[in-house]
Amino acid sequence: MWQYKAPLRDMRFVLEHWLQAPAVWAELPAFTDVDLPLALQVLEEAARFSSGVLAPLNASGDRQGCRWQAGEVGTPDGFAAAYRAYVEGGWPALACAPEHGGQGLPQLLDAALQEMLYASNHAWAMYTGIAHGAYLCLRANAPQALRERYLPVIVSGEILPTMCLTEPQAGSDVGLLRCRAELQGDGSYRLTGSKLFISGGEHDLTDDILHLVLARLPDAPASTRGISLFLVPKRLDDGRRNAVRCDGIEHKMGIKGSATCSLSFDSAQGWLIGEANRGLAALFVMMNSARLHVGLQGLGHAEAAWQNAADYARERQQMRAPRRPKGVAAAAVDPIHYHPAMRLALLRLRTVSQGLRAIGYWGAHLLDQAEHAEQEAEREQAARLAGLLTPVIKAFFTDQGFNLASEALQVFGGYGYTGEYAIEQTLRDSRIAMIYEGSNEIQANDLLLRKVLGDGCVALDELLAVFEQEAAAGGEYAERLNALCAKWRGLVSGIFNHAQGDDEYPYRIAGDFLHLLGWSLLAFAWARSARLAALLRAEDPWYQEKLDSAAFFFTYLLPETELRLARIDAARAPLAFLS
Amino acid sequence: MWQYKAPLRDMRFVLEHWLQAPAVWAELPAFTDVDLPLALQVLEEAARFSSGVLAPLNASGDRQGCRWQAGEVGTPDGFAAAYRAYVEGGWPALACAPEHGGQGLPQLLDAALQEMLYASNHAWAMYTGIAHGAYLCLRANAPQALRERYLPVIVSGEILPTMCLTEPQAGSDVGLLRCRAELQGDGSYRLTGSKLFISGGEHDLTDDILHLVLARLPDAPASTRGISLFLVPKRLDDGRRNAVRCDGIEHKMGIKGSATCSLSFDSAQGWLIGEANRGLAALFVMMNSARLHVGLQGLGHAEAAWQNAADYARERQQMRAPRRPKGVAAAAVDPIHYHPAMRLALLRLRTVSQGLRAIGYWGAHLLDQAEHAEQEAEREQAARLAGLLTPVIKAFFTDQGFNLASEALQVFGGYGYTGEYAIEQTLRDSRIAMIYEGSNEIQANDLLLRKVLGDGCVALDELLAVFEQEAAAGGEYAERLNALCAKWRGLVSGIFNHAQGDDEYPYRIAGDFLHLLGWSLLAFAWARSARLAALLRAEDPWYQEKLDSAAFFFTYLLPETELRLARIDAARAPLAFLS
Repeated sequence: MWQYKAPLRDMRFVLEHWLQAPAVWAELPAFTDVDLPLALQVLEEAARFSSGVLAPLNASGDRQGCRWQAGEVGTPDGFAAAYRAYVEGGWPALACAPEHGGQGLPQLLDAALQEMLYASNHAWAMYTGIAHGAYLCLRANAPQALRERYLPVIVSGEILPTMCLTEPQAGSDVGLLRCRAELQGDGSYRLTGSKLFISGGEHDLTDDILHLVLARLPDAPASTRGISLFLVPKRLDDGRRNAVRCDGIEHKMGIKGSATCSLSFDSAQGWLIGEANRGLAALFVMMNSARLHVGLQGLGHAEAAWQNAADYARERQQMRAPRRPKGVAAAAVDPIHYHPAMRLALLRLRTVSQGLRAIGYWGAHLLDQAEHAEQEAEREQAARLAGLLTPVIKAFFTDQGFNLASEALQVFGGYGYTGEYAIEQTLRDSRIAMIYEGSNEIQANDLLLRKVLGDGCVALDELLAVFEQEAAAGGEYAERLNALCAKWRGLVSGIFNHAQGDDEYPYRIAGDFLHLLGWSLLAFAWARSARLAALLRAEDPWYQEKLDSAAFFFTYLLPETELRLARIDAARAPLAFLS
Repeated sequence: MWQYKAPLRDMRFVLEHWLQAPAVWAELPAFTDVDLPLALQVLEEAARFSSGVLAPLNASGDRQGCRWQAGEVGTPDGFAAAYRAYVEGGWPALACAPEHGGQGLPQLLDAALQEMLYASNHAWAMYTGIAHGAYLCLRANAPQALRERYLPVIVSGEILPTMCLTEPQAGSDVGLLRCRAELQGDGSYRLTGSKLFISGGEHDLTDDILHLVLARLPDAPASTRGISLFLVPKRLDDGRRNAVRCDGIEHKMGIKGSATCSLSFDSAQGWLIGEANRGLAALFVMMNSARLHVGLQGLGHAEAAWQNAADYARERQQMRAPRRPKGVAAAAVDPIHYHPAMRLALLRLRTVSQGLRAIGYWGAHLLDQAEHAEQEAEREQAARLAGLLTPVIKAFFTDQGFNLASEALQVFGGYGYTGEYAIEQTLRDSRIAMIYEGSNEIQANDLLLRKVLGDGCVALDELLAVFEQEAAAGGEYAERLNALCAKWRGLVSGIFNHAQGDDEYPYRIAGDFLHLLGWSLLAFAWARSARLAALLRAEDPWYQEKLDSAAFFFTYLLPETELRLARIDAARAPLAFLS
């Protein structure tokens, strides 16, 4: 049946070889104590927790779902106990600063932890997933008294935060929100309005919940320039309930163990975070981290889909395969992973998952460098590159997570469509990540309009330089990577030029542009992985698999870049409107 | 909320103009009474039934699902009443021969009916979906007494048939089945064994159920050459229950209102259909029709997804769009279908759905010609072409149905992921069609190995000649279609030649080959639609939409063929095995 084993071997490969993270940590004052053995120990502990505690609750949590009654929400059996174990393990503190009780470890390790949490139980991890972003946001924006009051309890896990943005009429367009806040004599505010689709808006994991709420002051300008951020705890300091009520929970396609709440604020007491009317700017500090997290959900689902499909394909026997691995005798029926159609699906699952891991962890590693590098120029470059990668990680990873879940389901045949193996749950759970935290269409616009055209192509040029540097290091796929870079050079100026006379053009190609960059990042990931694996294979036959995957990537998956390039070119033609 | 309106306008376009079906019917002795007004009247009645009776039960049937207790199955509320209305409307008789009480109408009209049934309520239509195939199978293979006993009650709808093939260890590999049949003194057989995933294996729509069961005789050879087909009614002629029991129903991802049963046959009485050990050959007569039906499920889901997404996109307003239709004044927020990302999704939904409709109906039209054309050569050519199209219709249509359901869900954003609009149900329901009735991987192998390479490319050449004939008729996309045909010429001989030294090669490319043909068929569909629409536009502005869709197809979707061609070429390289 469905299970999850953390891919520690591949995680180690990415940390140790692909990123050479320990050497980078040694250069960052915040992480001079972090070395490979410590990192591996953390990952092993995280693996034990996710595989041993969370994964067994994944299918049962889906079947049971959440219960709402008179404003209270019950999570599935075992969720609260798992959260207690999570807190006792000190996991909320992992990547928080020691001054607030954190362990001060790199976000890179937190990324590996998050991948495991999402892979083993996406619904459960929705409750904890916002904590780190909220921590970053409050640390950067909250007044000192609130920082002192709330940062330690977020870090300890005593309180769980939420993000309250969406309203019925305001989804992608947050500028349409109507929730109102009025200043009181004591400097606090009273918030009134309704919020929708609030993950973990009410639950039984912690006694208190900390809502970060976007709302408008009475004199605020319309649009996004009149939105402020407030902190609204479920419980006030005297222990009374604040005037926040959960009016119901959504019936959803997946992540059924995660309570998606409608909340009403009825003159609830709150405090301003950051400047008035600058609420979106206050959230900005957590945006990269939050979107990286969602991308890691895509990676986690892809990994879980790969593992479970591979296990099933090794067990299930149907028909005689046209060819078998060397040394395997002919038989009347073969395990289905010998059949070419299944091998294609399984190799796609393995190759894309592992490629995403390298890129996703790189994104986290860049966030660490953006925060902790000694030189400002280094910090800025890392931040720029992380900003460029973030929308790709969010959107490309989650598209892949869903597509790969469907590929995996197909390996199971009819058994995949029934609940027995829970792979259909992976498909259902993975689908949400393409929608929330800025839909994948929003990400594509952010990438092309802001991060590429808006930036004068600086970050993209830096990224291509990294690709070319990899190609210059040699390896079997250096030429393929160079040829891809050559296609990139000139592409953006061509887009820019056409957009001068056709300002809609970038919007028409944004999705294809994002996927082109996603596949190009995987080409980089696999060129580098193959070069390293060729060096390491002599000491460990495990690396042969990497070489097989790289060969698969450059044969079967690289052509995806051609499709995107062709569409970017063709889309100069106008696009009709619906009648 | 979710609704379904049968796309009668487009159905008429396909029948009247794209296929010019009335002119063909006039040449077929069986259909000389069928003309356009009659056909349209049938479609209007079918639309009333599907939109008025079935669609309102779609979401409720999903929520309620089926109930199993002590071997009995209860279908969702309203399903049985809807079935009575279906029977009273004479729908089971539509495309059956008058000699058995049928209406003798073309399968083409049945295809339109089926599209509507599946679009409005896939789960419900699972109960009726096998009836026509079973009718064909029994008519061709059953001894006269059984034909006389059962054909009239299938045609009247008094009895519903099932197909009992799959067993736990025998899915795609039907040769592994173990169910046994032993001859009795009275000429009947006793069947013993277990069957899995039997749609409608037990239900409360009809008093009797007619199981078509694959089983082995005691002396049968192993593999598929030892499988026989039996008819096993739920009730014997004296009214007693036969020894067939429903042991349970599956908990599934979707089509929850369809009872997917485990059946055990415990010395159940049955009768041989066709020759001993030739059970698969007996089923062959219904294969094209059954697979066409499943393809129509993909079309139905695509159509329903398109309609609902378009309706929502017209209502929902978010953000200012970079461009608006001519004559629309600027506003602070626009309906989301003005936004390029949504327009791309919606135009893909409309363009692919309508293209699939033309191709799917053509497949049905060919089945009519294969049965009823006066000249044997005409019948054979139509059968050959239908045989070539069938695996593409089954697999390409169902892949598209699922992908388009996901595109549509994305248009709804967070509202799509919740149950409110039931678009997430379309996604879940549509997923099964990629698996059953021969998985899409099996279809791909059937297409390339049997229908193309096994046939010496005769049918494919005939198909390309049809494409080229369309191009020769002119129209805006004639050159594009000719250029595509030029890529096809030589492709198959290249595949054949490489396969001489690498017999696994066709299996590695079968999926891409099928999708290449699928997209090429859509290119044909849209070239022809555009040519006709250009002629018809003067009398009806509705045709401008067709021209917009064709332009969208040749700009945004035709590049999909390049991806498939690139992969077919690249896949000459070997493909690794999993370790």
